[in-house]
Amino acid sequence: MAHSVPDFYAVIPAGGIGSRLWPLSRADAPKFLHDLTGSGRSLLRDTWDRLEPLAGPDRISVVTGRAHRAAVERELPGIPDRNVFLESEPRDSTAAIGLAAAILSRREPDVIIGSFAADHVIRGTQVFEWAVQQAVAVAREGYICTIGIPPIEPSIGFGYIKKAGELVVTGAPEAALVERFVEKPDLETARTYVADRSYLWNAGMFISRADVLLAEIAASQPELHAGLMELAEAWDDREARGPVVDRVWPTLTKIAIDYSVAEPAAGKGRLAVIPGHFDWDDVGDFASLAKLNSGGRLNDLAILGENARILSDAASGIVVSQTKRIISLIGVKDIVVVDTEDALLVTTSEHAQRVKGVVDALKLSGRGEVL
Amino acid sequence: MAHSVPDFYAVIPAGGIGSRLWPLSRADAPKFLHDLTGSGRSLLRDTWDRLEPLAGPDRISVVTGRAHRAAVERELPGIPDRNVFLESEPRDSTAAIGLAAAILSRREPDVIIGSFAADHVIRGTQVFEWAVQQAVAVAREGYICTIGIPPIEPSIGFGYIKKAGELVVTGAPEAALVERFVEKPDLETARTYVADRSYLWNAGMFISRADVLLAEIAASQPELHAGLMELAEAWDDREARGPVVDRVWPTLTKIAIDYSVAEPAAGKGRLAVIPGHFDWDDVGDFASLAKLNSGGRLNDLAILGENARILSDAASGIVVSQTKRIISLIGVKDIVVVDTEDALLVTTSEHAQRVKGVVDALKLSGRGEVL
Repeated sequence: MAHSVPDFYAVIPAGGIGSRLWPLSRADAPKFLHDLTGSGRSLLRDTWDRLEPLAGPDRISVVTGRAHRAAVERELPGIPDRNVFLESEPRDSTAAIGLAAAILSRREPDVIIGSFAADHVIRGTQVFEWAVQQAVAVAREGYICTIGIPPIEPSIGFGYIKKAGELVVTGAPEAALVERFVEKPDLETARTYVADRSYLWNAGMFISRADVLLAEIAASQPELHAGLMELAEAWDDREARGPVVDRVWPTLTKIAIDYSVAEPAAGKGRLAVIPGHFDWDDVGDFASLAKLNSGGRLNDLAILGENARILSDAASGIVVSQTKRIISLIGVKDIVVVDTEDALLVTTSEHAQRVKGVVDALKLSGRGEVL
Repeated sequence: MAHSVPDFYAVIPAGGIGSRLWPLSRADAPKFLHDLTGSGRSLLRDTWDRLEPLAGPDRISVVTGRAHRAAVERELPGIPDRNVFLESEPRDSTAAIGLAAAILSRREPDVIIGSFAADHVIRGTQVFEWAVQQAVAVAREGYICTIGIPPIEPSIGFGYIKKAGELVVTGAPEAALVERFVEKPDLETARTYVADRSYLWNAGMFISRADVLLAEIAASQPELHAGLMELAEAWDDREARGPVVDRVWPTLTKIAIDYSVAEPAAGKGRLAVIPGHFDWDDVGDFASLAKLNSGGRLNDLAILGENARILSDAASGIVVSQTKRIISLIGVKDIVVVDTEDALLVTTSEHAQRVKGVVDALKLSGRGEVL
């Protein structure tokens, strides 16, 4: 186990539902509450367990929706009440991470925060810790630091980070500056990125001094910044917090932190990156979930579900079982079957990205009760 | 509506479960109890309704397992108790139809029986009745008469009947003798049969005088015949029946009527055939069920189930819904999805015949509770 990293404080934004994993992921059972790896623990719990040796149990905050408070506390029984930051509604990642930065910065001016999604899968504890330790060293120098994943295939499902020159920081031998952020590319472009070696997958991890992060938000989104500061000022005053949250939170600009912080910082030469040499996946759809659970092999049938009763005859793909029903698959290739009490999904790996369209269609057709 | 045909008595063997339609068809919900056409009526009820104008409501018997007695009486509320012949266990079609022939022959020596499967689909009432009327005319002359279906495609799922020369019988202008029965052919052979025009699909319909049928059984299966006669003698004696059934029925040779009666009769020039110019299907698997419910079109999604809630995005095939769950299909072609409370099947039309293998596997693995 690593020693705690001085000044480091972990923030876990746990906001997204994970619509592409419907009907497994739901409004009342978002992706981060599921065990998607067969570990027996939720992704949120895995995230916590990964960060605890680095930050310590009292220095991890979760930013989540009010509706998920009980579930989060169930998953993380040790979490102090003051470390759970509740959103009254989703306002995207700048608001979520910025709120945490603003509150923590008031509590502890020199704090270095690292934000890590609640619903990603990471394998390789030591190299993860080593990457974070380097990122903290870089952040201590006033940079905003991200951790990028060296691509192992030309994925079109992730954004990319283009490295610039090396950055000399003690304790961070792999540090580099970031030239720019790149949106999800097409396959052709992704192939050139993989061959190039100076591109990394954007895994959405940001490590920086809280005050540095807030300064970037202030520069790019002054109104949003003002709102966050007002919220933070009232936050630790039990009487003041409620009315301020009700008034200010819904007015905050919805913008991803990539746009409000990372891209502007890159433009100014203030964004750094540490390569993360660990297995990482954002489990963005069922195709990715299938791969994750079949060791990356094709033509395997990955099975998720504690009580799964599967009978497979020459089937491959993934089946997720949340019921006790017998599920029989015959001769279906790269199939995706998700069996829940009130909804059933049947598709293929190839079409897994289109699940979000179904969710939208269900909303439109007034059948939102299964979302 | 046709007038009743003199001496005609319809027999409906309702024995088979229809394993290839699992998990829709079950031991306690066999194929003949399902509405597979969206008519709102079970196949058994449709069969009854088709025969009633020909035989009259008091002249239709059902031969079924003891376990299905209540269900059969629910489907056919008008059926007299004495017309339900209960098997203590399945002994194949010669025993089932032979039992009916033996009982009915004692009750009415000149009776002409016609046996029609409980779980086939027929469309075209008038031409069906016309075919039966001709078959009865042929049977009256002492022949065993079958009704064969002119093939519309080179099916490898049916047996074929090879016609011989015309048979001159008053009231049966289309009558022909049968040269031989042919087992399910391969595709190449099936193609030559369709082109030949002297081959018909064997639809398992047999019309003959009861005594003629029994004489054929006596000639080919003397022990089975003796057992049937002993059963028939005791049948209408309420006190005698039980012990005789318990002793004799389980000893009867299991043999299909095609082998015990039709083939030997064909060899002796005593088997005739009437072509049935109606749509007929034995609904042998989900591929056939899909076709039946999509008007034969490919790339359509056929939906069966009163409360089906289906969301389809570029899917084709068939979905059978027995639950209230939302079923979402994305980009799956020729898919077969059967959604029941305790079992789910996902396969494709191409592999539909392999469903029986799953049923066998479930039996072997001790999970017979879902069969």
